[in-house]
Amino acid sequence: MEFNLSLSAVATDHRAVPMDKNKVYDVIIAGGGPAAMTAAVYCMRKGVAAGFVTVDIGGQVGETSGIENYLGFNYIEGSQLVEKFAGQMKQFEIGLSEGYAVTEIKDGREKEVVLENGDRYRAKSIILATGNRWRKLNVPGETELTGRGVAYCAICDAPLFAGKKVAVVGGGNTGIESAIDLAKIAEKVTVIQILDRLTADKVLIDAMQQFNNMEVLLLHEVKEIQGDKTVHAVVVKDTVSGGEKSLDVQGIFISIGLMPNTDMVKGVVELNGFGEIVVDCSCKTSAPGIFAAGDVTSVPYKQIIIAAGEGAKAALSACDYILKE
Amino acid sequence: MEFNLSLSAVATDHRAVPMDKNKVYDVIIAGGGPAAMTAAVYCMRKGVAAGFVTVDIGGQVGETSGIENYLGFNYIEGSQLVEKFAGQMKQFEIGLSEGYAVTEIKDGREKEVVLENGDRYRAKSIILATGNRWRKLNVPGETELTGRGVAYCAICDAPLFAGKKVAVVGGGNTGIESAIDLAKIAEKVTVIQILDRLTADKVLIDAMQQFNNMEVLLLHEVKEIQGDKTVHAVVVKDTVSGGEKSLDVQGIFISIGLMPNTDMVKGVVELNGFGEIVVDCSCKTSAPGIFAAGDVTSVPYKQIIIAAGEGAKAALSACDYILKE
Repeated sequence: MEFNLSLSAVATDHRAVPMDKNKVYDVIIAGGGPAAMTAAVYCMRKGVAAGFVTVDIGGQVGETSGIENYLGFNYIEGSQLVEKFAGQMKQFEIGLSEGYAVTEIKDGREKEVVLENGDRYRAKSIILATGNRWRKLNVPGETELTGRGVAYCAICDAPLFAGKKVAVVGGGNTGIESAIDLAKIAEKVTVIQILDRLTADKVLIDAMQQFNNMEVLLLHEVKEIQGDKTVHAVVVKDTVSGGEKSLDVQGIFISIGLMPNTDMVKGVVELNGFGEIVVDCSCKTSAPGIFAAGDVTSVPYKQIIIAAGEGAKAALSACDYILKE
Repeated sequence: MEFNLSLSAVATDHRAVPMDKNKVYDVIIAGGGPAAMTAAVYCMRKGVAAGFVTVDIGGQVGETSGIENYLGFNYIEGSQLVEKFAGQMKQFEIGLSEGYAVTEIKDGREKEVVLENGDRYRAKSIILATGNRWRKLNVPGETELTGRGVAYCAICDAPLFAGKKVAVVGGGNTGIESAIDLAKIAEKVTVIQILDRLTADKVLIDAMQQFNNMEVLLLHEVKEIQGDKTVHAVVVKDTVSGGEKSLDVQGIFISIGLMPNTDMVKGVVELNGFGEIVVDCSCKTSAPGIFAAGDVTSVPYKQIIIAAGEGAKAALSACDYILKE
């Protein structure tokens, strides 16, 4: 007598189905990153009816090159990790809507999720895991030259700058990762950091040392991006002396952080001064039945493994809520 | 000109070193499970001097059979996941003490960790990730017959009960996982649950259906475990009728939850009513410079992915603390 107990062995097919407008879901998960996908896996394993609405599966992780701090993998490409997460989610019969952002959340005993294409879906509870987007410098030239030398995602756009001179704004992990990616192919990389030190992890700062085509400008800020059809120069100001100078670059990568995607819940749940959704240690927001997880929340430190853990918590909290209602 | 940027490629050797009694570590991590190991990886990547003191690497994860809800792996054995976590940690030159439990934490500007063998190590900050242990029934016969029919870890001890009749106490995930593991090899498995329903995940309850040698007793509690050299019977009481009966079993697995390992910090940090360490969303405890993560904390839901996320948070909080001190 032998039993095959590997549940996943019978469930590795793609079983996601389109979202159903006539159904009231137990939970709808908004967002497509690690927090959202982990929440989905936990909800489905609990056997609740779950929907998943996202612009794209993977979120910012898909744009990340090498990941070395997601436990279980010494090194994995962002796109590979997304594939693993998504495959795990699609083992289950989950309702799935891809391609449209959430524009509105309507609260009430029964809640409603409105998408940018007008689609509306109903649920007893909602998990917000909509992540965040690149923060802008808000200097002259930035908007006009975006896509024509002004870039935000090194992993997406670095190859366009092979053999060219580029600037990277920001000395945190994202900035230094971008600078390293660029240094491998660009003629020269200038890192512009407003603080008096780089704030990236030591392993990244150490890794910079192997490049002789990198320069770091501490205590400098960008005043203007110049160009016509494409970027020609970046004007920077020395914040100590006040002096300005022009850097001869053909590209500029802006890596100064992220803005939470919370426009759709303004007035619905409490946000903090950064516009992040305030949650407690169980991922509860200020609105009963609405939970939040990952980079969109007030939880400090935006990391894949943290987002995944928070997604699991939000799912288990939502399942407890549904059971009690 | 080509650069090899894969940091892990140059660091996959086992680089852990013995703990140093004369050193003041930036952070000492107590515990050996997913929270502790994730904290270690994050601390080392930040370049701080970290020590790691544990009885055994892996903690309860090593005792877990199939894991299907750690994102990144559709299915992985607990021991395999531990190997991956540990390998990732030992890429770095971390101080490591294995084999002895922490018996005391001394707080102060400089903190001290005392082990059961008398060893003492000093640090500027501490991360407590000491997990928890099996909860006992506290009924007659339990202590006397432990190891002689009374067991807590199905993955460790199930093979001893091949062809025998066993009881499993507890209807949560751990209980039902134990019951399924046992049903594959035992003659009969009786699940004893004090509540009026099983609280395990639906996928696990569904998986039970394929076994015709399982019985579930809801609303029953264990009054006594009987035997001499080994277990002969378990006396259960129907909590509705009050009637008692004796189950003819040769083994009993007690899967009724866990107790936090916090004896060493009583009076040092605030504990809640369950004896868990109270933490905020940044994994700060009530004592400055002492952080906590994973199953030992007040954070709800004891899950590997949650513990890993919390370990990352605790590490980043500790690094912030060290920087400011």
